[in-house]
Amino acid sequence: MPNESQSAVLIAGAIAGWKTTLDKADKFFANLDEVALYQEVAPGRNRLIYLLGHLTAMHDRMIALLGFSDRVCPELDEVFLTSPDKAVELPSVEAIRSRWSEVSTKLNSGIDALSTSDWLTRHTAVSEEDFAREPLRNRFSILLSRTNHLSHHLGQAALVRK
Amino acid sequence: MPNESQSAVLIAGAIAGWKTTLDKADKFFANLDEVALYQEVAPGRNRLIYLLGHLTAMHDRMIALLGFSDRVCPELDEVFLTSPDKAVELPSVEAIRSRWSEVSTKLNSGIDALSTSDWLTRHTAVSEEDFAREPLRNRFSILLSRTNHLSHHLGQAALVRK
Repeated sequence: MPNESQSAVLIAGAIAGWKTTLDKADKFFANLDEVALYQEVAPGRNRLIYLLGHLTAMHDRMIALLGFSDRVCPELDEVFLTSPDKAVELPSVEAIRSRWSEVSTKLNSGIDALSTSDWLTRHTAVSEEDFAREPLRNRFSILLSRTNHLSHHLGQAALVRK
Repeated sequence: MPNESQSAVLIAGAIAGWKTTLDKADKFFANLDEVALYQEVAPGRNRLIYLLGHLTAMHDRMIALLGFSDRVCPELDEVFLTSPDKAVELPSVEAIRSRWSEVSTKLNSGIDALSTSDWLTRHTAVSEEDFAREPLRNRFSILLSRTNHLSHHLGQAALVRK
């Protein structure tokens, strides 16, 4: 296999893993009604609605980290990244669902548009100087780590009885 | 960046993600005593000791899937892959911990020894014919999907109060 195709296949595999996991999350949350979304994943732990908002905020940060555009909903950070669940009032289910869809669509469009060599360039939270020393802090690593982050919370969400 | 180095950097990023996650799991389980390991992650759900055995069996299967060697402990499948928790008697904590270490060491030695082009070759559960049509069913995709699988269960394990 030519070396250039090698990189393209590796990246295609990682994107497939991301999309499969995101799709699983999308279907999981879409199939739950409002009452179900207010269940905790375990006694005293995060509610599903909080996890959906948390994932939306994290993925919105990815849009900026991968350099696609400005963030869609930075106002979610205070509720879903800085505060734990039940500390502040949450936006409506409808509002969170709508942000989730918007962020997912924007993120996947950006992901589909990146070239092989784009994936090897630094993400926006690392300086050029640091990146010269640590070349693994590239966009590709963001894709991998966020797929893992999503799996981490989907594992928790799967504990809820439907 | 030369195209050959591109693939090497992508693979190094994925291996770093795997090792970070495996290390997290290793520390998590090592820090729990026997009583703690018998806790359920949520009411009526898997116990931590079952998760440790389940991950050991899955990672042991990886050793064969990646073509490194014969499996270390195929006898764990019946307990931790085919049967749900509490259906059959579990091996001792000591035995499971020892298998976990053995499997992790063997797996990581194999991972460290693979060349860039090795990662692009098929895993042992896909035929040459199918692989010709589906080139993403390579060893690299096994590494990514098993890192996600590990994150999925670590997310659940993290719900237990220490």
